[in-house]
Amino acid sequence: MSGGFTENELIETLLAGYRSAAPLLGPGDDAGILAVPDGRLVTSIDTITEDQDFRRVWPSGYRTTGYDVGWKSVAQNLSDINAMGARPTGLVTSLSLPEDIDLDWVASFAQGVTEALEQLGAHDCAIVGGDVGRGSEISVTTTTFGSLDGGDPVLRSGARPGDVLAVCGTLGLAAAGVDVLEHALPESEVSELRLGELPRDWSESVRSAVVGQLRPKPPIGSGPEARALGVHAMLDLSDGLVRDAERMAKASEVSVQLDPDLVGSQGAGLEQPARLIGGELHRWVYAGGEDFALLGAFDASADLPMRWVQVGSVTAGDPSLNIGEETAGDWLTRQSGQASGGWDPFC
Amino acid sequence: MSGGFTENELIETLLAGYRSAAPLLGPGDDAGILAVPDGRLVTSIDTITEDQDFRRVWPSGYRTTGYDVGWKSVAQNLSDINAMGARPTGLVTSLSLPEDIDLDWVASFAQGVTEALEQLGAHDCAIVGGDVGRGSEISVTTTTFGSLDGGDPVLRSGARPGDVLAVCGTLGLAAAGVDVLEHALPESEVSELRLGELPRDWSESVRSAVVGQLRPKPPIGSGPEARALGVHAMLDLSDGLVRDAERMAKASEVSVQLDPDLVGSQGAGLEQPARLIGGELHRWVYAGGEDFALLGAFDASADLPMRWVQVGSVTAGDPSLNIGEETAGDWLTRQSGQASGGWDPFC
Repeated sequence: MSGGFTENELIETLLAGYRSAAPLLGPGDDAGILAVPDGRLVTSIDTITEDQDFRRVWPSGYRTTGYDVGWKSVAQNLSDINAMGARPTGLVTSLSLPEDIDLDWVASFAQGVTEALEQLGAHDCAIVGGDVGRGSEISVTTTTFGSLDGGDPVLRSGARPGDVLAVCGTLGLAAAGVDVLEHALPESEVSELRLGELPRDWSESVRSAVVGQLRPKPPIGSGPEARALGVHAMLDLSDGLVRDAERMAKASEVSVQLDPDLVGSQGAGLEQPARLIGGELHRWVYAGGEDFALLGAFDASADLPMRWVQVGSVTAGDPSLNIGEETAGDWLTRQSGQASGGWDPFC
Repeated sequence: MSGGFTENELIETLLAGYRSAAPLLGPGDDAGILAVPDGRLVTSIDTITEDQDFRRVWPSGYRTTGYDVGWKSVAQNLSDINAMGARPTGLVTSLSLPEDIDLDWVASFAQGVTEALEQLGAHDCAIVGGDVGRGSEISVTTTTFGSLDGGDPVLRSGARPGDVLAVCGTLGLAAAGVDVLEHALPESEVSELRLGELPRDWSESVRSAVVGQLRPKPPIGSGPEARALGVHAMLDLSDGLVRDAERMAKASEVSVQLDPDLVGSQGAGLEQPARLIGGELHRWVYAGGEDFALLGAFDASADLPMRWVQVGSVTAGDPSLNIGEETAGDWLTRQSGQASGGWDPFC
């Protein structure tokens, strides 16, 4: 036996730590069964992998916990369901673990999954099944399920000229957090950091950014609410406002303008992290992903729902993205000397 | 840019190679949508990972293709749906790729997925969505969906004393194949083997075993058929007859007896691979997994469905597994000098 535990012990540890709504048939047979009352299943799959989506030990010294990985996998995946205007109803998770991961890590992972479901308000989301196996790196794939409760899905292709573009959730917080985590601290500070014992010179807002990266809080529930209020188009900002707004522009065949002053309105909590590490506020706000905020296109004649703030507008014209009067690329280059258009794992 | 392509090029290559039934909403938005007419979704998730479930280059010289990986991921996952007595209706796939994988490999992967769906008879199975990302090893996670078409799921816990235990599919073929692939050949033979150009001294049955390992053919469709005919309990043999029959015994709280002469009835096609590499026929047949055959418990008074063969029987008593008159462990030890109870990736 390698790794210090059997497959059965691993599965028992996971099942002991999971709490969720009950599916029609849960883990234990060849497959699980989920109720899909309205006859349509909304579904999405996402993988997070060590050294791609997180580091085990960050240059800051923080050690990613099983809790962080479980939370982030769930949060990121629920966000895709939210962005369709759907309510999360279930998930299955496949866990690949290297041999130096122990059962404490696994118990912490299960707790992170459970608390993400509870704290993000996904009370109807059932853990339907899973898979475990070996790999040379930690990798977690979650498939999520959602219900439209009889409504129509909200696609990214529905934005119309004249629409108001708005965001629900934070912008730039997770990007600031990853830059802080990647920032090497004085050697005395770097060993075995915990979220509860971050360095004394990290203020509350620096801590918030780190927590925003490790344990993002997509606004679950705001997606179905926006759908009910007639939002025309929606997607989640997993790759950053610039890149995802451009996706909406292309899918909807419209031109999208982003306000050039969002750093002022959205960047308030980011100033201290920026001072700490010399980070670029405009890049965090415009190009940072992983906050899993919602981007929606609303009819200009309607009031925006609670918690949404306007970030731009939609006009007719060839699919394009502009920030103020400039192309996004020119604007980003002028701000920083380089055009940073968001996250592509293959570039 | 690393790896020679962008995320968009990777996704376009996959979508160009996929053919499947059409979902309500396919890949391209935050999530896809699948029709679930009877209001219950059967779902399962499985990951296959380089060096755990396959080698890129085997000691025999065979190089695993994208086609092989795509085929196996789909076949293994459809099998879980089949084993519930359900009909596969959809899947989502997440692909983690190292930097030395090129777009030809990706195109081959998509072709393997497509041809597995077609050749396994999963004509109603829609590709609903997916995810792509980087990893240090090739890893593919597929989540499959199925429909019970109004029927009851077949659990592993329904076996009753007096039942006949039967198998639909091959036993030991994939295990023989992996041992052949792990068998070092003379150096002149080992470079760039293809399925179409296996060594001249490999007979048709050796070739069949290799193909059985790389591109298994679970009997999709026989699961729902057995359900319709009233099978009491069913699971798929992914970890070998001994281990999986024991799971049925435990879940059903019955004693299970396997016939001790299955090598005679099931091992005919395995004799040439065994001669080539000195393989152990009884281990392949009784403990080999990955054929994804179905194991079912049928009422003794009913005729077995077509393609099913009896492999044992069910009696009352403490949950246990025996082969003939002996415990499975004793029997396996007597055959080979070691008890080999099937596959546990953590042991």
